[in-house]
Amino acid sequence: MCAVTIQVGDLYAQPRGSNLTADAPAGQATWIWYPGDYAVWLANKMQNRRTERGAFLPVFWKMDSHYVLVEFHKDINLSHPDTIQIAVEGRYNVKIDGKAITGNLKTIQLPKGQHRLSLKVYNQAAVPAIYVKGNQVISDGSWQVTFEDKEWIDASGKASDKSGTTYEHAGYWNFNTAANKPSAFQLQTVPASPVKRTVLPSGSVLLDFGKETFGFIRLKEVSGKGVVNIYYGESKAEALSRDSCETLDRIEFTTPVNNFDTTTASTKAFRYVQIDAPKAVKIGQVDMLYEYAPVTSRGAFSCSDSLINKIWQVAAYTLHLNTREFFIDGIKRDRWIWSGDANQSFLMNYYLYFDQPTVKRTLYALRGKDPVTSHINTIMDYSFYWFMAVKDYYEYSGDAELVKTIYPKMQTLMRYCLSRTDKDGFMEGLSGDWVFIDWADHLTKKGALSFEQLLFCQSLETMAICANVCGDKAGAKKYQNLASQLKAKLFSVFWDSERHAFIHRIFKGKKDEAVFRYTNMFALLLGYLSPVQRKEVITHVLLNNQVQAIHTPYMRFYELAALCVADSQKVVTREIKSYWGGMLQKGATSFWEEYDPAAKGDAQYAMYGRPFGKSLCHAWGASPIYLLGKYYLGVQPTSPGYKTYEVKPALGGLKWIKGSVPFAKGDIQIYCDQKQIKVKTTGQTEKGTLIFHSRTQPRTNLGTIKQTSEQAYTLELHTGQQYVVNYEAI
Amino acid sequence: MCAVTIQVGDLYAQPRGSNLTADAPAGQATWIWYPGDYAVWLANKMQNRRTERGAFLPVFWKMDSHYVLVEFHKDINLSHPDTIQIAVEGRYNVKIDGKAITGNLKTIQLPKGQHRLSLKVYNQAAVPAIYVKGNQVISDGSWQVTFEDKEWIDASGKASDKSGTTYEHAGYWNFNTAANKPSAFQLQTVPASPVKRTVLPSGSVLLDFGKETFGFIRLKEVSGKGVVNIYYGESKAEALSRDSCETLDRIEFTTPVNNFDTTTASTKAFRYVQIDAPKAVKIGQVDMLYEYAPVTSRGAFSCSDSLINKIWQVAAYTLHLNTREFFIDGIKRDRWIWSGDANQSFLMNYYLYFDQPTVKRTLYALRGKDPVTSHINTIMDYSFYWFMAVKDYYEYSGDAELVKTIYPKMQTLMRYCLSRTDKDGFMEGLSGDWVFIDWADHLTKKGALSFEQLLFCQSLETMAICANVCGDKAGAKKYQNLASQLKAKLFSVFWDSERHAFIHRIFKGKKDEAVFRYTNMFALLLGYLSPVQRKEVITHVLLNNQVQAIHTPYMRFYELAALCVADSQKVVTREIKSYWGGMLQKGATSFWEEYDPAAKGDAQYAMYGRPFGKSLCHAWGASPIYLLGKYYLGVQPTSPGYKTYEVKPALGGLKWIKGSVPFAKGDIQIYCDQKQIKVKTTGQTEKGTLIFHSRTQPRTNLGTIKQTSEQAYTLELHTGQQYVVNYEAI
Repeated sequence: MCAVTIQVGDLYAQPRGSNLTADAPAGQATWIWYPGDYAVWLANKMQNRRTERGAFLPVFWKMDSHYVLVEFHKDINLSHPDTIQIAVEGRYNVKIDGKAITGNLKTIQLPKGQHRLSLKVYNQAAVPAIYVKGNQVISDGSWQVTFEDKEWIDASGKASDKSGTTYEHAGYWNFNTAANKPSAFQLQTVPASPVKRTVLPSGSVLLDFGKETFGFIRLKEVSGKGVVNIYYGESKAEALSRDSCETLDRIEFTTPVNNFDTTTASTKAFRYVQIDAPKAVKIGQVDMLYEYAPVTSRGAFSCSDSLINKIWQVAAYTLHLNTREFFIDGIKRDRWIWSGDANQSFLMNYYLYFDQPTVKRTLYALRGKDPVTSHINTIMDYSFYWFMAVKDYYEYSGDAELVKTIYPKMQTLMRYCLSRTDKDGFMEGLSGDWVFIDWADHLTKKGALSFEQLLFCQSLETMAICANVCGDKAGAKKYQNLASQLKAKLFSVFWDSERHAFIHRIFKGKKDEAVFRYTNMFALLLGYLSPVQRKEVITHVLLNNQVQAIHTPYMRFYELAALCVADSQKVVTREIKSYWGGMLQKGATSFWEEYDPAAKGDAQYAMYGRPFGKSLCHAWGASPIYLLGKYYLGVQPTSPGYKTYEVKPALGGLKWIKGSVPFAKGDIQIYCDQKQIKVKTTGQTEKGTLIFHSRTQPRTNLGTIKQTSEQAYTLELHTGQQYVVNYEAI
Repeated sequence: MCAVTIQVGDLYAQPRGSNLTADAPAGQATWIWYPGDYAVWLANKMQNRRTERGAFLPVFWKMDSHYVLVEFHKDINLSHPDTIQIAVEGRYNVKIDGKAITGNLKTIQLPKGQHRLSLKVYNQAAVPAIYVKGNQVISDGSWQVTFEDKEWIDASGKASDKSGTTYEHAGYWNFNTAANKPSAFQLQTVPASPVKRTVLPSGSVLLDFGKETFGFIRLKEVSGKGVVNIYYGESKAEALSRDSCETLDRIEFTTPVNNFDTTTASTKAFRYVQIDAPKAVKIGQVDMLYEYAPVTSRGAFSCSDSLINKIWQVAAYTLHLNTREFFIDGIKRDRWIWSGDANQSFLMNYYLYFDQPTVKRTLYALRGKDPVTSHINTIMDYSFYWFMAVKDYYEYSGDAELVKTIYPKMQTLMRYCLSRTDKDGFMEGLSGDWVFIDWADHLTKKGALSFEQLLFCQSLETMAICANVCGDKAGAKKYQNLASQLKAKLFSVFWDSERHAFIHRIFKGKKDEAVFRYTNMFALLLGYLSPVQRKEVITHVLLNNQVQAIHTPYMRFYELAALCVADSQKVVTREIKSYWGGMLQKGATSFWEEYDPAAKGDAQYAMYGRPFGKSLCHAWGASPIYLLGKYYLGVQPTSPGYKTYEVKPALGGLKWIKGSVPFAKGDIQIYCDQKQIKVKTTGQTEKGTLIFHSRTQPRTNLGTIKQTSEQAYTLELHTGQQYVVNYEAI
């Protein structure tokens, strides 16, 4: 296996359209629907596109549906009469002040004064949605919606009391014209050509698109009659393996065609494609339609090390391929939304796109609808990651509206969790629960696992935070109490002072004193440890080679983050270069689902008992995006939505680093070397804090540097200013 | 208002096709789906056809959806290989022993031996459904289905434990060929012509179809250009009232047509139709497509009184018009499924069609899906009627399968009810609850109403019965205890020994001692009263004119049933003749939603504050079907599914009665006059009991008559025998 040469910049050269994933700007009419319903519907559509060797392969958990009948209304006060245009997806009525209009329901005259404009829409196949545009009245997120308006009248014609009805603010995205119907949404495409064409001994043709990619194959100028088989490969070996490649297409020309162009019906992931046509079929040309989400890369990172830069670029490309209608796990398979995987994509997103709509859609899609009949994706830890992801989203974005809308669904999922606790208040895997943690040897999953309790505890803390955002004080108190009790129990039962670490589990009433990295690194990351325990965990677990190593990029994400929190960026730099650099050495053009440096040849592509089961483009492989943004550039919010934030640059052994970190209302640009730190924030924040160490007394061009302890300094940052700090790195 | 002459037999002359509503016969391949889902989907379709003066008028409660992704499987043991044909509604895969098949998924070879055949289907717009037909393997109700199969595999390819998954038996109806797709279902139609055509002074044309009817209007041989307005009327006055008729159609010929035939897009209810065409539009002919459910009338009744016979015929016609995809309330409006209304249709159905599939569909559609967010139809009493209807269905049909499938949904609805009780365990109308009881003056609905508690108690008893059917002994005990406690409280709080009756309610801690018929007649009907209380209620409430009279056929249903239970059939005969006969006198060709004998002229059509708001064809108007079958022919099951039953004929002042009562597996034919009773049962039962009184010693041609008390006798009945008893009626 020879390493390919990667052209940095070329690899990540992405088509860029208008930023389709941004929300509609305020004051603009946009299509609206019941909040979360569009995500549920679109997720069904996307997740039902998976195939395995031609066979349809859907998810194995409950798929929910949108509400098929929805009432929308808005109370308006018009200074003048308004003429409004209405577009609707579904069968509908329009009421003004409760009275139905008949005749033309597409253009309506609204009289001046105080009125209630209501529409009620039925749509079984797609999401009931409306678009209203007048001079004074527009459809937007301020509309009220409900799935049960309870508007009965009695025999005399008197209207009911409606106080039992819960109204929500409408959901929306960026369908900002009447013609741009939500149900017609498709990702964008652009043609791309193979970089190499090889005729195989069998006569079939192998195309190499130069790098991992995704889209439709186009057969052009086809003549003749017969069956064309297309075998896809993320690796060359996979595309060559007709019997074992994971995905394939079969295009049958039952009647002769002449100079005919055709495109595959569904998208596939591949770098290599084997086209096997019988002699009776001539194909003029083959290329592809690359399909992509036109998200904007606002984050950036570069440094003195070209391998790290290459890794960042490939990671960004990997994340981009896996950022589609939603954040998915991998583009070859499963192409599904997995909570544990999405949780990492969310975090990477905050350092690359800061695309809030994709996070929101993914959160809604994962959670689905009530009733809760199993854990998210059937996996216990994945329910917890979902809670934690809501907390992260709120911290990064400050979007209290989402929290308020989704809080009832948080409550019902937490109720489900709490209904499955044992006498100690712990959650064990019950019948039908998948306990995942990681793909790893020796990692037993029966009983009460310390890892699951830790995530459960964090989920309860998330509930308390979100309850406060929603003004639910009783809920906040209840959840905080439950979290505190569980935390106390977690330490008393699982913390082992002899092992200086959390042990793995209790099973059948007995402690299993095995120590794994998982619980310990998460406890560090989540700030659950005392200063003493923190040191113990770093020494006895994180930096201890006796503790079983982690092989998946999935858990390396958290492991390396924990090392950064332990100020071990130098170790992390080495690990990134060796692990992700190792994949590049093996020819990777995107990062993998799992990587074992020791695996050789085609064996490295095997997983799930199948020779090419492994995904070679997996979102969780892109973690350097997050690590380099959060722990090298050192930027993170310290209050929701970057109202306040910190910048704590760390070179991690690199000579210099520079980059940009986006947030909802601006960007933070950082440069750092051994002698100088430069920071400039643009956009809307209250203040930031630069945190750094210096051997010598640092100097700044602006503001006043404060010393917080020996060699430790801070500088308050304000937006629009370019701060230049001269210092001497330790 | 002159009385029309009703041709008995003519009025109820119904087109009869194959009995489409019967279930698929055993051993025959049929389309299958997740149980209940087809009803939910079809109900959405049907209930979203209501319009009011052209405006779409959907329901105001939550509409649910089918599961969009469903797994079907069947474990089979084949003596020989089998070739099976597969038809599917939706995108699907096929697995044999867990391994997906590729290629042709319409014809599949199954090897001999023990195998699991699985299909997984996705369909957002319609219900995922499959049809499988081989020599040995067919799709039927024995297949297992689930909406979450939880079939994950770990990294090594090992399959998960699946024990957390709940499988149900598949639902089905009578789509018994591959081509007969469930999503394409439509009721049958047959052309019908108006009996009278009148040109109005305005130039528009008034058509009279001779009786209440339902369907599409067809305009034939239309030429010209312009707008044709169609105004529908259940009464002549309504069709003539362009401004106030409840339903209308507007057909616009935007470009000139020539000799063109067109049909209205949706069905309407009417007897009269006003066709208003401009001069520029010539219409050759107008007729209708009568739309109907091809159910078979198996029950029959006739007697010595021709008015009663006419009433029975019109009632049967009224019920037939309201028996559609589901049992609906009325054909003009609402055309919805209301639990209180359906409960009566179910009971009438047991004495007319004994059509189980329509009952099951209606029960599923009413209940919808979890979570429960409001009472059924938003009405508290309607939740209770639903429970009671399940009990009735089980008693009449003996269908334990339905009870087992629907029991989890009974539990969740009951949990919702129990979560809304007050400190006394009573259910008051909370915010968003509609408390209905009846359309009646002075009937206050705030506070804890004795009527609601009585129905709640019966619902709890139903839960206990169904828990036992499902083998849920703990549940049975719990619900029985709750029922007993509530019953005790009901009597201690609401029974007033001075008034010899249940009083109306407690409001703000105080008793409201008003006495209404409702609680008292239901207590009698449900067997809640001691012999003494029973007599008190009959004397002081039922037969007491001081107690406010009931004006709706809806509550007359129960009132007259209670009078029958009180052996007052003679009173009931008089009431039927005066009340239903009164409607006939007013020109009714089907029975009304509400009837006030005192109302005159067009005022009698007003309701809900609208001049023609009243429905003149309302299912609940058809109660004579039930009363005459159950309390005159006197037939009812005494153990589930007519395993045992009683026949207790009552002449109610008539010279003779005869008729037939259907049950799932047979029919019971009865003739009775003052001197002779004849009974013949065909079909499958264990035994029946004829119960009668005689002044003299009765004689029988078969079996042995037993005397049970003075002048009271019984005779055991066996199937296939014609019993002739000579006696002398008291």
